[in-house]
This record gives sequence, C-alpha cells and structure tokens, in this order.
Amino acid sequence: MSQNLAPTIRDLARKAATGDLHPLTIVDEVLHQIEHHKGNPIFISTVSPEAMRLRADELAALPADARAALPLYAVPFAVKDNIDVAGMPTTAGCPEFAYTPTKTAFVVERLLAAGGILVGKCNLDQFATGLTGMRSVYGSPVNPYSPDHVSGGSSSGSAVAVACGIVNFSLGTDTAGSGRIPAGFNNIVGYRPSSGLLSASGVVPCARSLDTISLFGNSTDDVRRVLAVAGGYDEKDPYSIELVSRSVPVGAPVVGVLDAEGDYFLGDELARTAYVHGVAQLRNLGFATVTIDYAPFKEISDMTYFGPSMSERTAVLGEFIRQHPNATYTPAVRNAIVKAADFSAVDAFAMLHRLKALERQTERETWSKVDFLCIPTAPTIHTREAVNRDPAWGSTSLGAYTNFAPFLGLPAISVQNGFRQDGLPTGIMFVGKRTDDMALLQLAESFAA
Amino acid sequence: MSQNLAPTIRDLARKAATGDLHPLTIVDEVLHQIEHHKGNPIFISTVSPEAMRLRADELAALPADARAALPLYAVPFAVKDNIDVAGMPTTAGCPEFAYTPTKTAFVVERLLAAGGILVGKCNLDQFATGLTGMRSVYGSPVNPYSPDHVSGGSSSGSAVAVACGIVNFSLGTDTAGSGRIPAGFNNIVGYRPSSGLLSASGVVPCARSLDTISLFGNSTDDVRRVLAVAGGYDEKDPYSIELVSRSVPVGAPVVGVLDAEGDYFLGDELARTAYVHGVAQLRNLGFATVTIDYAPFKEISDMTYFGPSMSERTAVLGEFIRQHPNATYTPAVRNAIVKAADFSAVDAFAMLHRLKALERQTERETWSKVDFLCIPTAPTIHTREAVNRDPAWGSTSLGAYTNFAPFLGLPAISVQNGFRQDGLPTGIMFVGKRTDDMALLQLAESFAA
Repeated sequence: MSQNLAPTIRDLARKAATGDLHPLTIVDEVLHQIEHHKGNPIFISTVSPEAMRLRADELAALPADARAALPLYAVPFAVKDNIDVAGMPTTAGCPEFAYTPTKTAFVVERLLAAGGILVGKCNLDQFATGLTGMRSVYGSPVNPYSPDHVSGGSSSGSAVAVACGIVNFSLGTDTAGSGRIPAGFNNIVGYRPSSGLLSASGVVPCARSLDTISLFGNSTDDVRRVLAVAGGYDEKDPYSIELVSRSVPVGAPVVGVLDAEGDYFLGDELARTAYVHGVAQLRNLGFATVTIDYAPFKEISDMTYFGPSMSERTAVLGEFIRQHPNATYTPAVRNAIVKAADFSAVDAFAMLHRLKALERQTERETWSKVDFLCIPTAPTIHTREAVNRDPAWGSTSLGAYTNFAPFLGLPAISVQNGFRQDGLPTGIMFVGKRTDDMALLQLAESFAA
Repeated sequence: MSQNLAPTIRDLARKAATGDLHPLTIVDEVLHQIEHHKGNPIFISTVSPEAMRLRADELAALPADARAALPLYAVPFAVKDNIDVAGMPTTAGCPEFAYTPTKTAFVVERLLAAGGILVGKCNLDQFATGLTGMRSVYGSPVNPYSPDHVSGGSSSGSAVAVACGIVNFSLGTDTAGSGRIPAGFNNIVGYRPSSGLLSASGVVPCARSLDTISLFGNSTDDVRRVLAVAGGYDEKDPYSIELVSRSVPVGAPVVGVLDAEGDYFLGDELARTAYVHGVAQLRNLGFATVTIDYAPFKEISDMTYFGPSMSERTAVLGEFIRQHPNATYTPAVRNAIVKAADFSAVDAFAMLHRLKALERQTERETWSKVDFLCIPTAPTIHTREAVNRDPAWGSTSLGAYTNFAPFLGLPAISVQNGFRQDGLPTGIMFVGKRTDDMALLQLAESFAA
C-alpha cells in the first residue's frame, strides 16, 4: 500500500519528487491494494489502471524542480462520490441520481494541480445522510478493525480507503458529523474546516448552509498539508469565505471538557474510559481544562434530526425524490427527506431564532472561558446488528458531539485516541472558534505527538 | 414647539444644561404641541403632564456639571409603540395585544440615562407591518405636508412627531423600510443602523432576523448624537453585535447610483426629477458616481412580501392571532401574517439559499466597485385614495429601495432631498457596507450640508 511506501504525505511526495520512488510504483501499489480490498465496497467507481498510469507518467515527466514544487506530488487520494470529477459519474449514493459532470470540483482541481493522483470515488451513505455507513445501496464499507461494527458515515468509503492504506488522504463531506464519525471508528484523522474555507463548488448539496468538504488522513500534519492546497476563496460558492487568520491564543490555551461522570456515553463504559484517558493526556501535556455545560451544544446538535433543519436537505433533494419515486433509495434516508417536507416556514424561522439564542449562550457561557473544546467524537460505536434493529436511532444517537459544529460554522477535528480494551479504536475531537483552524490543528497535533 | 426653542439636539441640550432654557419650559412647549396636534393620531399614549414635569424637575435639580455631561439633557423624544417603556402599555398597534411591561427597553433606558425626556408612544402600522401609515386601528397619522398623501409607515407616528416639531427625535423600527419610508415622506432624516448595532431587547419582534430600532431626527447630526448614546452590545439580544469600526474609505468614496432613465419611479416623473437632482448635487460635491445594476437588490427587496420571509413574522405573531381571532386587526396585516403560515420549511431554506447567492452577487458586481449606494427612498409617494383602492400594492410597491438592506444587515439613511414641483417633500437614501455606519453618516451629512 502507498502508506507502506511512505507513511506520511510529506515523505511520500518527497521520495517521489526526488526519484526514490517512481509514480508508477505508487500507482501499482494502489492498484494492488484496490484489488486486495475489492470485497469491501469502499469505492463506487475507480479511475482505470490505464488512466492512473498515464497520470503517473505525466507526473514523472515533469522536471525535477517542478516535481519538488508540488506539495502533493504523486500522492494518491480518493474523493467521496458526492464530489464531481469530470468524466466520472457522481452518484451521491443513488444510481438514478447519477450524472457525469464535465467540470471537476474546485477543491479536487486544486489537489490535482498540486500533484495528487486521484484513484477513485468513494461509497457513502445515500445523499450524505446518515452517520453509520450502513445507508448505501452500493453496500456497506467494512470497518478494518471490526467487521461486526459500523464503519461510520456518511463518508464511509473515504474513511475506510485511508484506514486500509489504499490512499494517503481522501475527501469526505460533513453536514452533521459525516467527516468525523468515521474517522473515530477507523482510527484516522477527520477534519471539518470552518464553514466556507473549502469551496463546495462541484459538490452535491446536502443542507447547503451546513455542508463542507472534509479531509481524512493518517495524521494532523497530513490534513494540514491538504488544507494548504485545497483552501481558497471561490466566488462561485456563495458560502465561501476568505480565511481571516486569527491570532493563536496567547499563553497556554484553555480547553473545555465534559464532566466525565456525566451521562455522555450511552452506557458504554469503554468509551468513557477512553475519553477520560484522552483528557488526562491533554492535561499531562500542560493544557488547562475547564468543565463545560454541554446542554446548549446538545440542543443545537439535536436540531439536525429532530426538527425543520432536515427540510434544508428536502429543499435540495425533495424534487428529485418526487420525480423519481422508483429510484433505488435507502428507506431511512428517503423517509427522513420526504417527511421533512411537512415542516412549515414558521417552524424553520422559529428554529433559526432558537439557534441564534443558543449560539449566543455558548459564546457567553463557554467560549468566553475556553479556546477549544475536547469532547468525544461519538458517544459509542454501534454494532451493525444494533443499527439494523433501529436504523434511525443508529444514526441520530451517534451525532451527539459532532452535529453542533456545522450550525455554528466551527472547525473540528477527530484524532486517534488509542484503543479500547475490546480492541476497537476511539476518536477524540477538538473543536475551535470560527476560523481558528490553524490553532486548532496545532492543538490536535500536540495531542497526537 | 421644542424645535422652535432650539432646532438641533446639540443646541437644545446645551441651552438647557447651561440654564438658558429650563427643562420645564421645554416640557410646557411639548405639552402645548401635543395639544395643538391632538386631532392627528400621532400617539397611542402619552406620558402624563405631571410625570413629564416631574422629569423636568428631576433634570433641573442636577448639578451643572452633571447636566453638561448628559448628551441628551432635556431633549424630548418619542418611541414607537412596539418598544417597551415600564408602566406604559405596549400595543404594537393592536389593543388586545397590549401589555404593560415592568422593564424599559435597553435603548430607551440609555436615552433616559443620557437626559432625554420621553413624551409618548407613537402610532404605527399594526405589528410594524406595512409601509403606508394607513394600517393602524388607532387612526392614520396625517402627513403635515399633504393630508391627501400617506405619512408612510410603519413608524408613522414616530416620523410625524418629529416632522410636526413635537419632539427632536424619535425611535422607530425597521424590518423592511419602516424607519426610512416615512422619513422621506415627512421631510426628516430616517436612519436604519447596521443590524445588531441597536439592541432589540424590549422591542416587540416582527421578523427577528431583520428587525432593528431606527432613528428619526431633523438632521444627520441629530441621529448620530442619538446613536452614540443608544448603541452598545446587549448580551440579552442574540442578534446584538459589537460595533467594529471599519476604516473610512481612503480618498473620495465612489457612490453607486441608478440609471436615471430606468423604470424606477412607477411613472412618477417628479420623483425621477428629484432623484436626478439629488445625484447631480452629490456629483457637485465631488463624489464619483457609478451606475449599478439594481436587479439583484430588487430581487432581494421583493423577498419581503412575495415569499416565505413573511413567515418569520408568523413565527412571532401567528400564535397570538390564532388565539385571538376576534381582536381588532388591520385586515391587510392580519391576512399577510396568517397567509404566510402556508409556506413550507423547504420554501424557507430555498429562499435563504437564494438570498445568500444574491448577496454574493451584489458583493461581486456592486460592492467591489462602490463604497455606498445613493438610491431613492421610495419610488413615489401614494395618495391615501390609491392605497385605499389596493392596500396590499400600496405597501409592497413602496419598498422597492428599502427592503434589501435588512436582509443584508446594511445601514441606510434617508435624508431630505428638497421639494417637488407639487410641494411634496422627497427623500434620498444612502446605503453603506455592513458596520460602515460612521462613514455612511458622514456622507449623508456632506450631502445635506
């Protein structure tokens, strides 16, 4: 696998650029890995071996200084299949929805211009709706750490592609927690940038005001390198923002944490132990921690599924579903989107007013005292069996810690937090103030170091 | 009238503070003016003569240095009757809606603390919904310049109270154009601050994300003095913002104007002439002008009445109307609010997405090239007869130039633009970038000078 060739993006790009590693060798290894994992429905489509080798040749033909100048030179990556690549179908997880764009998404174009090798388009919970990875009609990606447990979603294939070592990084999307939940379950890093930092041009909208492309990688340094290439203002995306860099907090940052005795883990004592261990590690690193009141964040998180927020997805996808009643749907996804058509505009504005009040409450009570939050990525990890018994609960219950960030536009990153006694990986999540992405990544890196 | 005693807030406060003018003399003049205009339904309630005289005594008893330190010392003012004053009923233009608050609105408290004398609560289009001034069940305030023409609304009484010289300034509110339309029709200044600059605590909500208190006065300098006292962050108002002062544009500002040949005046040639004259005056003052494409601003303005935006008012007022079917309503207001209950959350989110795209279009096409806009306050002024024939059109047609600013959070000020051949006053409006209020007021002042 490409990660065997070099475990970090920096090393892989450097080795390839200096000629220690030929791009064709990397492509052959990727093709070998795709073949090795072909029983796992990670991809919905892959770039043909010929096209991948052509790309390797093209990169190899560059002069040495051009190679060295490309930060992602010959680094293989994959993108979630709700992100456009010219000439490849975009399915968003629904075969009848599929179209073949003529234009590649803004962010993907930047990754290619930086020397990346695109290898395929990844499986996802249909229409990026769900947090389990069990909502795709293209099969459910297998968690490499436990076939009995979910991979997490909706960016299931993107996370598993990195976790299995097929690619060094991948793009997901994150509207509620889709870019972070599967990172925690697959022992990788999942980063949701501040809303607007990464252009959504060429991305199938989910809930437009909450969507962003997200990044998966093996380490914080890897996703930072991808961000440096992928970020930038896009005038075609109405939600795009210029990155206004804020000063990193002076002195040691204060980190808000949950009261570990609280009822935060759905009864999963191993999850609690992992979180307590993570917070202890943070303190050992010298960070001051403060216990926060999570209630307003939870109320915001619950807005994702229990109210008119879901109607924002209906605004984008409702018409397609109406016009294609017999398309291949995941029932839980279709039902959630169709049912949300019943909410009224009055409900929507009442929710937005409540959201604004809660946002101010979090600023007043929490953000005035802390620079970052450190919270679990997910309360627990579900078995496939449990999710099959109750698909709606399976998703909603997992979003307790991820879902508020999109409503507030906040950056958040899930990083590896070691393994539980039962051998499952756990993630821990850091959340920053809006556009404090650079400081957030720095904190996440200190934690992992 | 108090304006006869001293035409500017600065002079009145100074004369009173230095003892040239006793606060009781001011109060007596106000009481005389209220009596003189009692046939005009300007007020819904007034402060009792005893209470006003008590207030004058209290102010007069202050030591000289304390008097001099109060920027609004003994300056009489009035507030729209959707703004709370402890112990006086707040009706919002509906008798059955009325309640008597125990707490005075945040902004009013500041005005009182600065030495102002509150004289009464002003008539308004019911629930602050309408732009004509003909939608109150408390009578329709008479335009002092023409009884046959509307006063404008919804802050009708607040504008007329200043225009008739009863008070030196007043508070209105502005959700679409209610703080500017009546200024233009009554030959005074009407200023809508950037959204969030003035706290809405103690104000009856209309459409919460669009509402702000607005200021009426005789001059830009007068409203600036009021703003300096009234502004400030209020943690109890979720929409409140800190005023981040932006730098005034370097060099001569560029002002965006309409193509005067365009179809912008509903066929009212006198309105066109007045606007052309105003723009010429601006050029004579040395400002560079650029013709803008008004289409995206117009599309945003139209969202006020023709779509789910009205449901934001239903979110606040719908429940009251349901529970009080037999209260005294203005049919056009009641119908608009009730009918908006039919919009879906999908409609609302689709509108918000479109709004975001239009906002970016205005930034790209217009705000990248201009520092301010100079546009008509209203396309024309309607006769009462015309509005009676078609009350819905009467309101919606007037908002063509005011209504976009609230959606974008922009500051705007309507100032006097002279008189038409038919003797009616006309307003002209300047609009600034968000939180560019200080620079905007400076421009408005140069225009009037």
